[in-house]
Amino acid sequence: MVVPVLRSYVNDGWHRPAEEGRPLFDAVTGDEVARVSSAGIDIAAALEHGRRTGGPALRELTFHQRAALLKALGQHLREHRERLYAVSARTGATLGDSKFDVDGGIGVLLAYASKAKRELPNDTVHVEGAVEPLGRGGTFLGQHVCTPLRGVAVQVNAFNFPVWGPLEKLAPAFLAGVPSLVKPASPTAFLTAELIEIIVESQILPPGALAFVAGSLGDAFDHLTGQDLVSFTGSASTAQLLRTHPTLVRNAVRFTAEADSLNLSALGPDAAPGTAEFDLFVKGLVTEMTVKAGQKCTAIRRAFVPRAHVDAVVEAVSARLARTTVGNPAAEGVRMGALASLDQREEVRRSVKALADSGRIVFGDPERVEVVDADPDRGAFVSPILLVGDPERAEPHEVEAFGPVSTVLPYDSTAQLVDYAARGQGSLAGSVVTADPAFAREVVLGVAPWHGRLLVLNSRDAQESTGHGSPLPALVHGGPGRAGGGEEMGGIRGVLHHMQRTAVQADPDTLAAITGRWVPGAERHRTDVHPFRKHLEELRPGDTIVAGPRVVSQEDVEHFAEFTGDTFYAHMDADAAAANPLFGERVAHGYLVVSLAAGLFVDPDPGPVLANFGVDALRFLTPVRFGDELTVTLTCKQLTPRESAGYGEVRWDADVTRQDGESVARYDVLTLVAKKDAQEHAAG
Amino acid sequence: MVVPVLRSYVNDGWHRPAEEGRPLFDAVTGDEVARVSSAGIDIAAALEHGRRTGGPALRELTFHQRAALLKALGQHLREHRERLYAVSARTGATLGDSKFDVDGGIGVLLAYASKAKRELPNDTVHVEGAVEPLGRGGTFLGQHVCTPLRGVAVQVNAFNFPVWGPLEKLAPAFLAGVPSLVKPASPTAFLTAELIEIIVESQILPPGALAFVAGSLGDAFDHLTGQDLVSFTGSASTAQLLRTHPTLVRNAVRFTAEADSLNLSALGPDAAPGTAEFDLFVKGLVTEMTVKAGQKCTAIRRAFVPRAHVDAVVEAVSARLARTTVGNPAAEGVRMGALASLDQREEVRRSVKALADSGRIVFGDPERVEVVDADPDRGAFVSPILLVGDPERAEPHEVEAFGPVSTVLPYDSTAQLVDYAARGQGSLAGSVVTADPAFAREVVLGVAPWHGRLLVLNSRDAQESTGHGSPLPALVHGGPGRAGGGEEMGGIRGVLHHMQRTAVQADPDTLAAITGRWVPGAERHRTDVHPFRKHLEELRPGDTIVAGPRVVSQEDVEHFAEFTGDTFYAHMDADAAAANPLFGERVAHGYLVVSLAAGLFVDPDPGPVLANFGVDALRFLTPVRFGDELTVTLTCKQLTPRESAGYGEVRWDADVTRQDGESVARYDVLTLVAKKDAQEHAAG
Repeated sequence: MVVPVLRSYVNDGWHRPAEEGRPLFDAVTGDEVARVSSAGIDIAAALEHGRRTGGPALRELTFHQRAALLKALGQHLREHRERLYAVSARTGATLGDSKFDVDGGIGVLLAYASKAKRELPNDTVHVEGAVEPLGRGGTFLGQHVCTPLRGVAVQVNAFNFPVWGPLEKLAPAFLAGVPSLVKPASPTAFLTAELIEIIVESQILPPGALAFVAGSLGDAFDHLTGQDLVSFTGSASTAQLLRTHPTLVRNAVRFTAEADSLNLSALGPDAAPGTAEFDLFVKGLVTEMTVKAGQKCTAIRRAFVPRAHVDAVVEAVSARLARTTVGNPAAEGVRMGALASLDQREEVRRSVKALADSGRIVFGDPERVEVVDADPDRGAFVSPILLVGDPERAEPHEVEAFGPVSTVLPYDSTAQLVDYAARGQGSLAGSVVTADPAFAREVVLGVAPWHGRLLVLNSRDAQESTGHGSPLPALVHGGPGRAGGGEEMGGIRGVLHHMQRTAVQADPDTLAAITGRWVPGAERHRTDVHPFRKHLEELRPGDTIVAGPRVVSQEDVEHFAEFTGDTFYAHMDADAAAANPLFGERVAHGYLVVSLAAGLFVDPDPGPVLANFGVDALRFLTPVRFGDELTVTLTCKQLTPRESAGYGEVRWDADVTRQDGESVARYDVLTLVAKKDAQEHAAG
Repeated sequence: MVVPVLRSYVNDGWHRPAEEGRPLFDAVTGDEVARVSSAGIDIAAALEHGRRTGGPALRELTFHQRAALLKALGQHLREHRERLYAVSARTGATLGDSKFDVDGGIGVLLAYASKAKRELPNDTVHVEGAVEPLGRGGTFLGQHVCTPLRGVAVQVNAFNFPVWGPLEKLAPAFLAGVPSLVKPASPTAFLTAELIEIIVESQILPPGALAFVAGSLGDAFDHLTGQDLVSFTGSASTAQLLRTHPTLVRNAVRFTAEADSLNLSALGPDAAPGTAEFDLFVKGLVTEMTVKAGQKCTAIRRAFVPRAHVDAVVEAVSARLARTTVGNPAAEGVRMGALASLDQREEVRRSVKALADSGRIVFGDPERVEVVDADPDRGAFVSPILLVGDPERAEPHEVEAFGPVSTVLPYDSTAQLVDYAARGQGSLAGSVVTADPAFAREVVLGVAPWHGRLLVLNSRDAQESTGHGSPLPALVHGGPGRAGGGEEMGGIRGVLHHMQRTAVQADPDTLAAITGRWVPGAERHRTDVHPFRKHLEELRPGDTIVAGPRVVSQEDVEHFAEFTGDTFYAHMDADAAAANPLFGERVAHGYLVVSLAAGLFVDPDPGPVLANFGVDALRFLTPVRFGDELTVTLTCKQLTPRESAGYGEVRWDADVTRQDGESVARYDVLTLVAKKDAQEHAAG
């Protein structure tokens, strides 16, 4: 059998290495699977291709268009996932492990696509935060805009998630409009290569948006500029080496690292043996030890247990571990596969030794394991190992055995638990298993500064919980200190990490031109046609209707109160209203004001406006007194066409003023407006 | 005359150095002003004092309480600013320069105090972003919380803003709940020492919240942990050195740098000589060259001018520079003072030489300047220098002469301008002087990835504009690449930089306990007392009133339409409503639904509820049809007592449901509710 040589994908073409390459092995059988090398690749040219071809192609698309491609890619991968499962088995993964990696990665693409559609504009510029008035006269405004960095996101992945890892880095970069250069970790590069092959076959991504370098990145870092980024997952020592690369330092290249982490799980004092929470703690610990054979950056390494329950926990965990069949993932009944390589097994054995020196092993033997349907010498198998440690020693807080290894650590009080947690010096994830919200609050707020993510697990959320070890696209992933200080995903935060935030100061008209949306003070266009008569394509930010005046009488207020039942004293009781520090006399209902305003600005006849689906940021600024005359100015503020519907969202600025010009209410009205095309289709 | 030795302020006490120290000089007279040394200070102990005393004291306060202290500090400094002006003159600053530094710094404290009150909760935990539903059943939620880092913010300041620099770093750290260790740049450390003395005298800050180390930081960096931060302003070379300190790298210490920057100003093609914009460009350039003798990180180094207008710009700028009197800032008529030190003058002369080699000097002589009331050899005076350069050469984009020096660079097209701008490899600030919004958009979006801040200046905003060189507390300050990649201020962003963002996953009740606010799915307390009858201190998140049902009839809708004038077809025209893709039949007005809901939940009698001041995030989720029965559930979500008023803000969750339990509208109702104390006072 000829062993394949992994190809790289650069400059929109497949590249075969200029040398034979270094062998990669099947983690289960020890057979050679593939060879890897990046010899002959001009990585500087590959980066420049991304900058010159991929960046411009991505930046032509709006966020929603990029989201649609990401969704299509996720669906395509889902259709071809069996191919990935098959290759994944050779990394030592069980089918469950493979699904965690493959389906998890696909899920990130789909979740990001959906989030971008909801939370980002259908535009190429993202505006962040409110318009900041910088002068009293309203002629000078500030606003933050986010634009894509003009470089390449260099993504250095770890061996343990050959599919999820690259996809969770690709998704936010792609949405931001930044091309990706994917570097897999060599031991499992053959699986990432399969992933990239499926992606390239799909022809979904624009040219230049993706490169893949199997093997060393060579001198890539020498060629990075302040517009490029590096996202690294792997060991702390490598992170430190890369972080201090002179070119990265000189050019202040954005660098995020997700590195070592001594993650904790803490059992609450309320969760005594026999409670649902006790069982959840035990089950969670065993899951984290055995899924991916414990090769998860988020796996539980420190299991904090009230001193009184240590023996019970050890007993229950050991009993479950004893039932965990280790062996060839393809064999029936196997629950835990192999480590990714024999080197990894050596590393794990070394770490277990350090931990055992400061504590004691209570389950498993690092040198011996019974395996099903595999050769324990050729495959990278290791037994699950449970230890009991001394939390006053340094080792349990510092030595990460990257395999199916955890240490039970007793604690005596909440304050002590918080203190021990901090000794991990920064973690990716932690969990607290308790039904007691007060204990949960104290622990979570106490250890939060050292954590990127914290899970509270109990019988109320267990059924829907995604578990201790699963990063989620909507939540930040990463941790401070030892964990690398990086922050990946976290929803749109991850996208913005790939963009430059720039404060823009300008007059309202210029700011409106730059951001593509109307801002207070910018020109309003009062046209002959009511803006409700315009289709989405015909509307422009600044299109305005001024309507009114309408007098609000005492009779109106009393009638409204009687009709709605809202007889609040400020509207109905002259004495009580006079005593109110804000009013001094009877005033109109806020809901009456906005109802009358709608009565003024609405154009009633059937037309392109389909619905008012909401109102944002309504503030009643000045009380409306009996006899006040209301005028409303409604101005088109922002247009968000939907990519796959016959309509889009239109945000309007509504400013209700009284006879002296003072604003009495200000808010955004949200409508759905039909596209002209859609109507023509409907008519045709 | 005895020259004072600057004292440091550590462990809440003044410390006199254990040695004589190094002399600092008056920039104008060359006389020795003070001596500086940190000999004898145990900086590790000072850091630990901040962590053990300052951090806990700050974390006991809510954001609003910290804001109140910051405001008080700003007011105290304002009362004593004359002392700062007097010392500032010895740094070479004119009174105008001193105000820029001193009043600017005070302004940052006040602006931050006010922003924190408006945008942060009156609480110790900041919740960021929306609650993320993580399961369909609503039993598992995610939310990001931000907690103060448990370390010290080490703030390394530059010599050019001895007051503003430390204050703009202190304000966000203080608000976050993180103590500051202020290190001034030695040449102007005597002014920062005066500032710290005024702050300490005020006794406004809690113990341990502030330390000040005049002189070297010694081995401070060896003692930093992942919970500490470093904010650095200064040269790129020092930034690179500090950034790669092994302890910082190992512990992933948060490090921000604001370093070199070749800031640009671009004259638009529309702004020909004779236009208001031409004059604004010339005036802005001269201001940036001469304020603080050009020693501003944000000063304009590259002045891009359409080729046709280069001569006119040179002529106009030179004429203004010729009228700029240089000399002793105390003397009448002096418009530009000295550089901060003779060393700085040597540095400027070296840089001018490099620039002149690739271009030509068109105004000023770096070796000669006429000065008023000062000795040009002992004082660090230098003439303003204007050059015309070749933008195809590297020097104008790379050599920063940190003094009154700018280079005029011709350009021929917008695309070329954008390309030249990028050659600066990252800048803090840029400006575009144009009345043409389309040109402004093209340039701003083209150069934004290389900029932290961009100003568009024209006759519309000139009067209120704060100018090219002024960072503002509400806007980010910093820039990518060469500018250091840091991001300071930017409003609350700067506060959050000092906090750890942690994703919390929990069941609704636990999440509510952790965040101190009610979240959907958490327990609702239905008490006998209507929540509108409770004072602020008596209300609890989760307090709930369920009211209704009320039937919405066709008559109600028609009556409401007639009364308000809102006869939109979806409510009134059966055929048109049937054709609408979203409704299919006539539906009730959204404003009617919320008006009726208020009628249901309001408790009308006079009581602690003072007003409904607004509504947030109202969404109409399901159409209400004739005959539908509405019920409303109003739940107290979040309490924000005001520190200095007899009431506070209460945010309520309003959920309007119909007979089948489906939500038809969901929104936040915002009310002001009196404190019990306030009423007792009023009654007393």
